[in-house]
Amino acid sequence: MRVGIVGCGGRMGQMLLREVLATPGATLSGGTERPGSPSLGRDLGTLVGADPLGVAVTDDPAALFRDSDVVIDFTSPAATVAHAGLAAEHGTALVVGTTGLSAADSAVLAQAAAKTPVVVAANFSLGVNLLLGLVEKVAATLGPDWDIEVLEMHHRHKVDAPSGTALALGKAAAAGRGVELDAVKDTVRDGHTGARVPGHIGFATLRGGDVVGDHTVMFATEAERVELTHKAGDRRIFARGAVRAALWAAGKPAGLYGMKDVLGL
Amino acid sequence: MRVGIVGCGGRMGQMLLREVLATPGATLSGGTERPGSPSLGRDLGTLVGADPLGVAVTDDPAALFRDSDVVIDFTSPAATVAHAGLAAEHGTALVVGTTGLSAADSAVLAQAAAKTPVVVAANFSLGVNLLLGLVEKVAATLGPDWDIEVLEMHHRHKVDAPSGTALALGKAAAAGRGVELDAVKDTVRDGHTGARVPGHIGFATLRGGDVVGDHTVMFATEAERVELTHKAGDRRIFARGAVRAALWAAGKPAGLYGMKDVLGL
Amino acid sequence: MRVGIVGCGGRMGQMLLREVLATPGATLSGGTERPGSPSLGRDLGTLVGADPLGVAVTDDPAALFRDSDVVIDFTSPAATVAHAGLAAEHGTALVVGTTGLSAADSAVLAQAAAKTPVVVAANFSLGVNLLLGLVEKVAATLGPDWDIEVLEMHHRHKVDAPSGTALALGKAAAAGRGVELDAVKDTVRDGHTGARVPGHIGFATLRGGDVVGDHTVMFATEAERVELTHKAGDRRIFARGAVRAALWAAGKPAGLYGMKDVLGL
Amino acid sequence: MRVGIVGCGGRMGQMLLREVLATPGATLSGGTERPGSPSLGRDLGTLVGADPLGVAVTDDPAALFRDSDVVIDFTSPAATVAHAGLAAEHGTALVVGTTGLSAADSAVLAQAAAKTPVVVAANFSLGVNLLLGLVEKVAATLGPDWDIEVLEMHHRHKVDAPSGTALALGKAAAAGRGVELDAVKDTVRDGHTGARVPGHIGFATLRGGDVVGDHTVMFATEAERVELTHKAGDRRIFARGAVRAALWAAGKPAGLYGMKDVLGL
Repeated sequence: MRVGIVGCGGRMGQMLLREVLATPGATLSGGTERPGSPSLGRDLGTLVGADPLGVAVTDDPAALFRDSDVVIDFTSPAATVAHAGLAAEHGTALVVGTTGLSAADSAVLAQAAAKTPVVVAANFSLGVNLLLGLVEKVAATLGPDWDIEVLEMHHRHKVDAPSGTALALGKAAAAGRGVELDAVKDTVRDGHTGARVPGHIGFATLRGGDVVGDHTVMFATEAERVELTHKAGDRRIFARGAVRAALWAAGKPAGLYGMKDVLGL
Repeated sequence: MRVGIVGCGGRMGQMLLREVLATPGATLSGGTERPGSPSLGRDLGTLVGADPLGVAVTDDPAALFRDSDVVIDFTSPAATVAHAGLAAEHGTALVVGTTGLSAADSAVLAQAAAKTPVVVAANFSLGVNLLLGLVEKVAATLGPDWDIEVLEMHHRHKVDAPSGTALALGKAAAAGRGVELDAVKDTVRDGHTGARVPGHIGFATLRGGDVVGDHTVMFATEAERVELTHKAGDRRIFARGAVRAALWAAGKPAGLYGMKDVLGL
Repeated sequence: MRVGIVGCGGRMGQMLLREVLATPGATLSGGTERPGSPSLGRDLGTLVGADPLGVAVTDDPAALFRDSDVVIDFTSPAATVAHAGLAAEHGTALVVGTTGLSAADSAVLAQAAAKTPVVVAANFSLGVNLLLGLVEKVAATLGPDWDIEVLEMHHRHKVDAPSGTALALGKAAAAGRGVELDAVKDTVRDGHTGARVPGHIGFATLRGGDVVGDHTVMFATEAERVELTHKAGDRRIFARGAVRAALWAAGKPAGLYGMKDVLGL
Repeated sequence: MRVGIVGCGGRMGQMLLREVLATPGATLSGGTERPGSPSLGRDLGTLVGADPLGVAVTDDPAALFRDSDVVIDFTSPAATVAHAGLAAEHGTALVVGTTGLSAADSAVLAQAAAKTPVVVAANFSLGVNLLLGLVEKVAATLGPDWDIEVLEMHHRHKVDAPSGTALALGKAAAAGRGVELDAVKDTVRDGHTGARVPGHIGFATLRGGDVVGDHTVMFATEAERVELTHKAGDRRIFARGAVRAALWAAGKPAGLYGMKDVLGL
């Protein structure tokens, strides 16, 4: 199975390179970076402290999609939209871990998924995907007098908030209650807010240090709280899940998939 | 519905008295205490700061079971065993929240349940009973490379450890894995313990202040943790659940029931 | 010592009434509410479930300040500003627990403090005031590569964010670093935020259930976190601290005081 | 500065090798392992994935102490006692991170410290050493009606409990109260424990996954809790602190030192 990595020079990209190199049954087909990136031209092996592979980082994603069975993409929304077009054009499977996607971006991914398998997830860990199922179930079981709050903490370098995983947890809670998250989402509390609106789902965001990702969904009512938490200790769990998703997706029928499908939850 | 309270002079007993008085459809049939208790002879209403009821605390549980449709019992194992006999004899429903019951004590309750409805629970809150179901499910889903730990904190007056609820959570986890808790339970870690035994379920106990009851079940593997937590803020939630169980149990067929049955989870 | 309560009909006001009634050495001199409040005219004793006192709730704070040695005020910024004028005019000591005060409101309190003792605190508990000192010290000890975040959770009825206590903790952290909180405060994170700005202090706000008040200050750097937490289980600790402050303040020289002074920390 | 590592083949030993190699001003003088260890004879550089150094792992600690200015020891109590003798004999500074030391073992270290500088710490991180100071101060400030509990979690491979750091935190709390930890230590709670004894310090131990080390000291009273927490995300912080201690110790006068001295807290 030929696996390509777009955005391979960044922190997550390098982690993905290492994981592909360490995974039996996966062959690294190449890696790309933005024009101007200092990684361009470097050997993919030495870039991650391994033996030279004789394959250099390029800025040509079209060639990468053409030469891969599946491509893994943890880049930016704009880049991911372009990659989705290439995946559809070449019939290459696509695994997307990019966060901060707009509704329009997601629509583009859905279009590509009409022509090739596309796996999209806010978080590729087993634990978080288990949690998504639990949150939906608990939200459906507990009545409307239980307030739902989503708390997350990530490292100081993260550029968007709330995290894609936090929003996915909020969507799972909203789905359990049969409502749309956008209609009940509270992401800002600052100054005179008034009392909490019944049925709303609140988000709180912490940033600091090198925290890989902590998420807690709280259900709070009179004199009782239920809290469901996931803590990631190493971003390798995301790389491992993404490569697992890549091996699973290549050869599947066209369609939009989630980690629930990959993990068989 | 005539509801009686055994051990009505203690902290939890008084809470139960208040809850019965505040619950539509429930009539307080009486309350008992141990011989020698300073509460004996006091009016059940004034005992809890309400208007006088004209009914005094007695040390005659036989009369109480005779005159009640259901009796609620949060006392000690020895007392509960005696009460179970009275419940069976008089066909009175029994709701048991006593902690620290031995296997032999539980066998006595099962015998009584052949003749009258008996509800036994380690914890009467909605949140904890929801958690019991989640823990079993998660333990069944996550493989054996996830270590399971149960942490609890209660107030400084609690006399047994781990709490009945912690043990119930451990049993749910063991059930999810298809093993008996007694075969895998680690309740003591002190000195040279050796490495953690794979498959074991660990317990850790905190005591302090007036904490009503915090419980967390942790699932920990390489680089990931999932934690399921319940926090009780007021023991009224237990009294409320026990009275709800009492109203549910009176009139049911003989049998041994749990809060899962009462709450319809 | 004659102690008056303004805003005595609300949740905190009633708690203060009960605490004054239970405190040896304190005499309840009266209580006020807003014009139109349903509590007006009610007996202060029966209002809180105690024996009648023969003193009714009025809407005349001027009379209350005239007839009291000290007045406790947990109301709104606008009301507190008016009360500060009355305290100065009558030389009555004033204890202020109102949250959401603006810089202008605080200036008015400082003016009143030129004429009468004024105790202002965001939080009247022993634990929080201890924490304020620890946070300042830790912020001064740990270098700028430790990110500081303040997390708080309160009940669903709270109308402002972050809580006054969270802001006070943030100010203590800023003071430890020798900067002004306003220059480094991050209270909103929503959408594309960019990376965390070094030296900033972040705030995250949770709302739900009946949580009395949980606060955590986190210090996070590469591979290490230090967290200082306070959890309040019952708002009586605030009423108790406020009454303690009232007894302490009455008779002190004019001046602006904090709980650090009252507790002798 | 010539730095040697005893027990260099284990997890922590390899971390220390890497840290010495990465630290300007430190030269790796050698490393030892137990007779029979598979690491014996291997090159110290290739052992940790670096370039070959031309120095092999030996089982001759006497030679290592002779050829080093300072030796770092994270081994077992029996080995550390032997190393302390060698340090005293050769006048080599010694940095000890071994856990599970008995009172007799500590006495041997104190003897060695009469002849050479010895730094002993349960934990070499900046955060934990800061916490030790805070815990002592808080324990001294809060009255005896605040119960003190120490909670820790470590990975599944840890063989002793409570952790050395947890015990050090307990000692700091006891010191704040002017008592000996041994006189008030509760490390086992199982079965019928009776109510918490006022003034005791409780310990609770969690084990699971690859948790590097989480510690919380709780102070709990009626309706209030204060919690001081440290979370280590990577054992490199301990290696970094130990190497910092080694560079600090070499050349100091004979004596027994702690991380408080090294960090200047």
